[in-house]
Amino acid sequence: MFLARVIGSVVSTKKDETMRGQKLLLLRPMLVDEAKPAQFRAGANTIVAVDTLGAGSGDLVLFCQGSSARQASGMKALPIDAAVVGLVDSVEVLGHRLA
Amino acid sequence: MFLARVIGSVVSTKKDETMRGQKLLLLRPMLVDEAKPAQFRAGANTIVAVDTLGAGSGDLVLFCQGSSARQASGMKALPIDAAVVGLVDSVEVLGHRLA
Amino acid sequence: MFLARVIGSVVSTKKDETMRGQKLLLLRPMLVDEAKPAQFRAGANTIVAVDTLGAGSGDLVLFCQGSSARQASGMKALPIDAAVVGLVDSVEVLGHRLA
Amino acid sequence: MFLARVIGSVVSTKKDETMRGQKLLLLRPMLVDEAKPAQFRAGANTIVAVDTLGAGSGDLVLFCQGSSARQASGMKALPIDAAVVGLVDSVEVLGHRLA
Amino acid sequence: MFLARVIGSVVSTKKDETMRGQKLLLLRPMLVDEAKPAQFRAGANTIVAVDTLGAGSGDLVLFCQGSSARQASGMKALPIDAAVVGLVDSVEVLGHRLA
Repeated sequence: MFLARVIGSVVSTKKDETMRGQKLLLLRPMLVDEAKPAQFRAGANTIVAVDTLGAGSGDLVLFCQGSSARQASGMKALPIDAAVVGLVDSVEVLGHRLA
Repeated sequence: MFLARVIGSVVSTKKDETMRGQKLLLLRPMLVDEAKPAQFRAGANTIVAVDTLGAGSGDLVLFCQGSSARQASGMKALPIDAAVVGLVDSVEVLGHRLA
Repeated sequence: MFLARVIGSVVSTKKDETMRGQKLLLLRPMLVDEAKPAQFRAGANTIVAVDTLGAGSGDLVLFCQGSSARQASGMKALPIDAAVVGLVDSVEVLGHRLA
Repeated sequence: MFLARVIGSVVSTKKDETMRGQKLLLLRPMLVDEAKPAQFRAGANTIVAVDTLGAGSGDLVLFCQGSSARQASGMKALPIDAAVVGLVDSVEVLGHRLA
Repeated sequence: MFLARVIGSVVSTKKDETMRGQKLLLLRPMLVDEAKPAQFRAGANTIVAVDTLGAGSGDLVLFCQGSSARQASGMKALPIDAAVVGLVDSVEVLGHRLA
């Protein structure tokens, strides 16, 4: 999984039938550089993930990708490859608290 | 999933038998840079995805990859690893509407 | 899937038993830059894919990766993660014909 | 799989129900450059993986990704795409012992 | 699949139970640049793969990744995402023999 910040949302009316009603969030991965372990670095790519946990803009979340995303609650037969699987309370890196 | 712009199409007559009749689109991923959240940035790689939703050149779409692409409508046993799963109506990023 | 040019071949005598007799091609992905949509750009990585469609050196092909490669004809239980799934007749990008 | 150093941990109270009680570690991949085979190089991305082997901060571990992570002990139906699968005793590269 | 050179080995005593006795090799992917098709270029990342074919240090091998690695002989339920699936006898690229 990767950590990510919720930066937006996507609306798609015409989509695969099984995806009706699913909430689509735009995520920016948050990484930690070796030289600066006390802060996050924004990843370059932005990913669209399905969310069923109620994440909102600005939240730090945990998301998983690939077939594992279909193991998230209610996602079994959906054509999705990314899902929010946790809202993050805190992250600790080498003694620093980043979130 | 990733957002992408439809930039072209691919014709392949001699292909895996199960893929007969499938429409193949060339997609360019569309990402959002942290410093410029009000516009898209074009991704470097171009991907071929199967489309059953009627996407056309210039459309902004949502596509999924890997085994999840085979969960799209009618794709169950096909040797495909990318499928268009939604036509995008709107994208909102940090208060900006990008599409 | 990605577009790729067949640039070579690989011979492996000692291999997983299920792979006996499989033809292994070396592929170079072919991408399209946003600023130059009228021509292909060669990708940096070279991939080994199984081919059952009769592709030859110099051919432009479509290949798929991951578990989907095992959906290609005759590949069900093979330890392969890339397969040629189509020989490409033509590619059209923003009004340009690239192949 | 990749080698990685455990650099931190993640706490998520609100998460997919199946993930309750799982320990989440933040990993930094450790790679070996061709020109410097006697030492590790830190990878740029940081990954969140589930751990059931008791890895702690600073440990060198082996982790796997994708659907294979769900083959780790007790992970069958979890929406996870990365798991620690081994604690590393030693790594030998071209005659050098790195760990 | 990718071509790779065996550059080392990994020992892990405490690991997922199903992996007991598996031999873990460190691999460096070998790629071919478009401008220099007569020689290999070393990839930047180093990968740990399970080997059951008897590959040794310096050998050129073929490895597969993801769920397909579990299709290799004896790997069915293991939490592994990379396996050596062939020892390479020869590689031919645009008329050059690289191995």
